[in-house]
Amino acid sequence: MTLPITRAEVLELDAADELAGLRERFALPEGVVYLDGNSLGPPLASTAERLQRAVGAEWGGELVRGWNTCGWIDLPARVAARIAPLIGAGDDEVAVADSTSVNLFKLLAAAVAMRPGRPVILSEEENFPTDLYMAQGLAELLVDRARLEAVPRERLWESLDRQVAVLMLTHVDFRSGELHDMQALTRAAHEAGALALWDLAHSAGAVPVDVNHCRADFAVGCGYKYLNGGPGAPAFAYVARRHHRGLRTPLTGWMGHREPFAFTGAYEPAPGCARLLVGTPPILSLIALDEALELFSGVDVAALRRKSVALTELFIALVERRLADHGFRLASPREADRRGSQVSLAHPEGFAVMQALIARGVIGDFRAPDLLRFGFAPAYTRFVDVWDAVETLQQVMSTAEWERPELRIRPRVT
Amino acid sequence: MTLPITRAEVLELDAADELAGLRERFALPEGVVYLDGNSLGPPLASTAERLQRAVGAEWGGELVRGWNTCGWIDLPARVAARIAPLIGAGDDEVAVADSTSVNLFKLLAAAVAMRPGRPVILSEEENFPTDLYMAQGLAELLVDRARLEAVPRERLWESLDRQVAVLMLTHVDFRSGELHDMQALTRAAHEAGALALWDLAHSAGAVPVDVNHCRADFAVGCGYKYLNGGPGAPAFAYVARRHHRGLRTPLTGWMGHREPFAFTGAYEPAPGCARLLVGTPPILSLIALDEALELFSGVDVAALRRKSVALTELFIALVERRLADHGFRLASPREADRRGSQVSLAHPEGFAVMQALIARGVIGDFRAPDLLRFGFAPAYTRFVDVWDAVETLQQVMSTAEWERPELRIRPRVT
Repeated sequence: MTLPITRAEVLELDAADELAGLRERFALPEGVVYLDGNSLGPPLASTAERLQRAVGAEWGGELVRGWNTCGWIDLPARVAARIAPLIGAGDDEVAVADSTSVNLFKLLAAAVAMRPGRPVILSEEENFPTDLYMAQGLAELLVDRARLEAVPRERLWESLDRQVAVLMLTHVDFRSGELHDMQALTRAAHEAGALALWDLAHSAGAVPVDVNHCRADFAVGCGYKYLNGGPGAPAFAYVARRHHRGLRTPLTGWMGHREPFAFTGAYEPAPGCARLLVGTPPILSLIALDEALELFSGVDVAALRRKSVALTELFIALVERRLADHGFRLASPREADRRGSQVSLAHPEGFAVMQALIARGVIGDFRAPDLLRFGFAPAYTRFVDVWDAVETLQQVMSTAEWERPELRIRPRVT
Repeated sequence: MTLPITRAEVLELDAADELAGLRERFALPEGVVYLDGNSLGPPLASTAERLQRAVGAEWGGELVRGWNTCGWIDLPARVAARIAPLIGAGDDEVAVADSTSVNLFKLLAAAVAMRPGRPVILSEEENFPTDLYMAQGLAELLVDRARLEAVPRERLWESLDRQVAVLMLTHVDFRSGELHDMQALTRAAHEAGALALWDLAHSAGAVPVDVNHCRADFAVGCGYKYLNGGPGAPAFAYVARRHHRGLRTPLTGWMGHREPFAFTGAYEPAPGCARLLVGTPPILSLIALDEALELFSGVDVAALRRKSVALTELFIALVERRLADHGFRLASPREADRRGSQVSLAHPEGFAVMQALIARGVIGDFRAPDLLRFGFAPAYTRFVDVWDAVETLQQVMSTAEWERPELRIRPRVT
């Protein structure tokens, strides 16, 4: 790609975009350049109406019968089957339930039980905090049967020793957007006799993943980032088919029972991944996620990746050209194949700069101590959004408007 | 109450009902007598519009900013504060998160940790299955540090020995509607040195509970029965203030961290009950629950109980008068003060009889082997609904229409 010189040239890229039709299905506000879909994806235009129907005709009309007549009881499995092709899994290898954190707990406990005498959950210090916290909680509960070892990224390989039960990593680093080599690290874990559990929160829907090809054992991921399922949408969990038979998780709820409505006193796990269900699923949130996933039906994940790479390449190139004198440092890998669908820029005044951008309608987010994060969801981000974001950033920096004191106020959620 | 002889007399009871105004706020379908609110409460008329706004103006308009600008981040605490007065808890003693099953796991693990050397989780055989399953899952994980003992109800008292860490019971039995004496059993647990954990799934919103007065240690409950939060609505958990400081649950997710957005590597629990949060909460489902709970604002729970008792008394009396020759046996306590807000009738053809009732628009449910369950939610059930339900049951029995073979087909969810 030759670097465009004018906004008109960028609009030509959008005109030629094979995925341009997807954006029209979103309900995005006017005047906003939304580059935080890696934190919360926007709703589809159809989501509000679908929920209206779910509350009115389904819940209100069918009442408790809706579990049968509206298919709510099978909804977790139907939603799981929509997610499976996005991560290279079989339909029966994915469950949708609970949150990413809770699913991590289930699978970490299962992994530790599958490797008795090997207490270590190996991860990296920079992993997303809740992943580390959940491992800490499990370790505290299991005392000497489990412990978390979170090492610097460069020490992961040498730390894969015979004490390690499971290697727990996030595919795309939430700060830098750097990609792990899932295939190589999974192989290394297996060679050490350990299992591999991948957090795909920042991958599914934007970065192609092939859990089966990589021989990953377990994975988790969230429904509200690139999958656009709504704030706190239910999460997913993947378990390779070869582990289904022996899979035991400690969260043995009735929805994961072989016969939930037999109301027997002894827990018997449902076949396969269905045992990852615990309590009654939040149907309204699941319906919003189901609606959002319809977007990906028939969409080639390789095409999503091609556009994602083109967007992030354009952003980096424009920043390099137009903002070279403003103290930014690229905090994401420069090589596209080592990068997820986001670009992070470090700047000592990053927090205030991001607040100034948001005030002008360019929405990214900030991660301490100094990172401005920009997510480029290929399903709805246009090339012109990239141009306008850099243009706005250039204006913010050249007018020093980020120095306004009101931009120093921290909101509760960053 | 003198037993009404005519439908007109029953309509007078409705005309005099101090809670009659509440029903108008629900979206209940025409031609249906809904007596399964103990399984799934109906939506409020305002719930669809509230969700429309949540998806449109909030999620769609504010996007990720909604965590701050729409107050999503505080929503779990706001919803918890609405539930607290319904169960006699302080606002800071309730958390809303996850499912009842997952909350049980957290609190059972916390309880077992608070009573080292006492491995027993004591419950009754007839407890709701998922409660027993969750205890089994925890026991399997903890090996010799925990085990479930589920005894017949009449053996609970003698089983409270020095091995028991926690007594786990459901306040209202899901089959019979029989009430446990929460105060006496909690006291007995404490005298034995154990903690008491109550499942309030079939209580909150219909049967008054006073966890503080009873000195209950822990409680859980669900948002989708008498609280009308929608299918699979988020659940609640109560922890007595005196246990807040030492409370450790194994599900240590970022939303229960003291500073979730500091993104530090070490888990530090948030103050009090907030540490019961784990992953990102399902906001759309939480908003539906929040809207539903507005119904109870300013409503006297004692008035709800008075109406609930009047409804169940009327139902039992009418069944006794009009269905004496049809083989029904009252499976709920005859004394109102030993009964929750439901009445169960045993009948050898109970499944088909219930299917015939549902086909005629009288919706209760069936629990194996032979129970017809009728829930009388005082917020929206009218006295005339009770009359019409008995009238319909009488018609079903006298015409033997329950013998139709198509009524033998079991749906997936019963």
